[in-house]
Amino acid sequence: MPQIRLVVEYDGKPFSGWQAQPNVRTVQEELHKALKTVLREDIGLPVASGRTDAGVSARRQVVCFKSDSIDLENLQRVLVGVSSILKNEVAILAIDRVPDDFHPIHMAVAKQYSYRVWNHPSPPVLCYGSAMHVTGPISMEAMLSEASHLIGEHDFSSFRATGCGASSPVRTVTSIDIERDGNVVEFRVVGQGFLKQMVRNIVGTLLEYGKDPERQPSCREVLQAKDRSVAGPTAEPWGLSLDWVEYPEGRL
Amino acid sequence: MPQIRLVVEYDGKPFSGWQAQPNVRTVQEELHKALKTVLREDIGLPVASGRTDAGVSARRQVVCFKSDSIDLENLQRVLVGVSSILKNEVAILAIDRVPDDFHPIHMAVAKQYSYRVWNHPSPPVLCYGSAMHVTGPISMEAMLSEASHLIGEHDFSSFRATGCGASSPVRTVTSIDIERDGNVVEFRVVGQGFLKQMVRNIVGTLLEYGKDPERQPSCREVLQAKDRSVAGPTAEPWGLSLDWVEYPEGRL
Repeated sequence: MPQIRLVVEYDGKPFSGWQAQPNVRTVQEELHKALKTVLREDIGLPVASGRTDAGVSARRQVVCFKSDSIDLENLQRVLVGVSSILKNEVAILAIDRVPDDFHPIHMAVAKQYSYRVWNHPSPPVLCYGSAMHVTGPISMEAMLSEASHLIGEHDFSSFRATGCGASSPVRTVTSIDIERDGNVVEFRVVGQGFLKQMVRNIVGTLLEYGKDPERQPSCREVLQAKDRSVAGPTAEPWGLSLDWVEYPEGRL
Repeated sequence: MPQIRLVVEYDGKPFSGWQAQPNVRTVQEELHKALKTVLREDIGLPVASGRTDAGVSARRQVVCFKSDSIDLENLQRVLVGVSSILKNEVAILAIDRVPDDFHPIHMAVAKQYSYRVWNHPSPPVLCYGSAMHVTGPISMEAMLSEASHLIGEHDFSSFRATGCGASSPVRTVTSIDIERDGNVVEFRVVGQGFLKQMVRNIVGTLLEYGKDPERQPSCREVLQAKDRSVAGPTAEPWGLSLDWVEYPEGRL
């Protein structure tokens, strides 16, 4: 059965996350239903490169499914059909056929998440719903300095949500960029893969150093403690977005 | 009476434009009411650097008013109070006292407007409400080439809305930058001042050349015709934002 790969953009706000669950509206289930309508075939639940939590958006999530009935000569019809059913909430940005042995989770070599903070005493207006509001001053220097301790392969138990099902807490963070553009501070975190809420816990913790550069213990000691209670709070979901997923062939 | 200057951000979508009018919700009237509440003084309608149309946003609009009762030692209280009343719709980003002879309209030396287009067959998701949707291919080369004819001092009658009250149709456009970042095309137009709907008419016209690089007449001839019907359609308001206003002292 041909395997089809999608690059999907979605707004996290109207959904209870990626993963299908009973009694809530999820991206996976809505995409499943829209594909069923367009293809007139129940292709089962599509598989993404990874779950995103409730409220988290994606600019370029990678999603696969198998279909018997899809017209390989007219994949554009599926792109337009599904995007019009899920108008302004989910859009298919690209569609192609991939070999049967392509796997969106296991073959991912890197991912970037970005997190936006609106840093001003007044509440956000044009970035309302896509940024976390921090009213007081934030030291970029303190955040960049503490972030440097997180780069590399570490046991990220201190940044792992309770209920995370991963067998190992060890992950590799390739880079953390933090930039200010006017009143917006943007974090960009690249890694091979992340534990549950790991990026939001990293951002929430770095912001604590941003607000109080003298905060103790340092991020290095927080890592070493392997204890979630030593790190900072989980940053709100709406500031977070999955930017891209990279495979051996390149970024999608 | 001390004159107070605000830098104001607003979302165009919930408002029928800047200017107060009967029976509709406007930024000017809502800001007026919020200032009245916070200052416990009716300061009259505040004056902006220029009107924005219904649906048009502003990142940094400049607004002035005079007040007898304002506490000059605690202007931050006004910033926070007004922004919390108009939460997520209008925010005061800066507040200061200016000399009596400062005038937000007459002393403005330049303004930048930006216009965003989502260019993809699927409808916009994360830039829904802040970008115009164009489904087909757009030639950046054709748009940049035609835009060059608009730079400088010209009679912009072909780009002027009916009902524009300006005494002269002559305006100076300093620069038009057009950049693509993924599926988003952003126009940035800088000038000393603009006629009614002039920026949206420029963008709507340039997009016609983008869609059809062979389109005739050229933008040079459109200018020379001094006839609105020769130019392209008015681009939708939601893509447009007033980015900043410049005064002799600098950009605000």
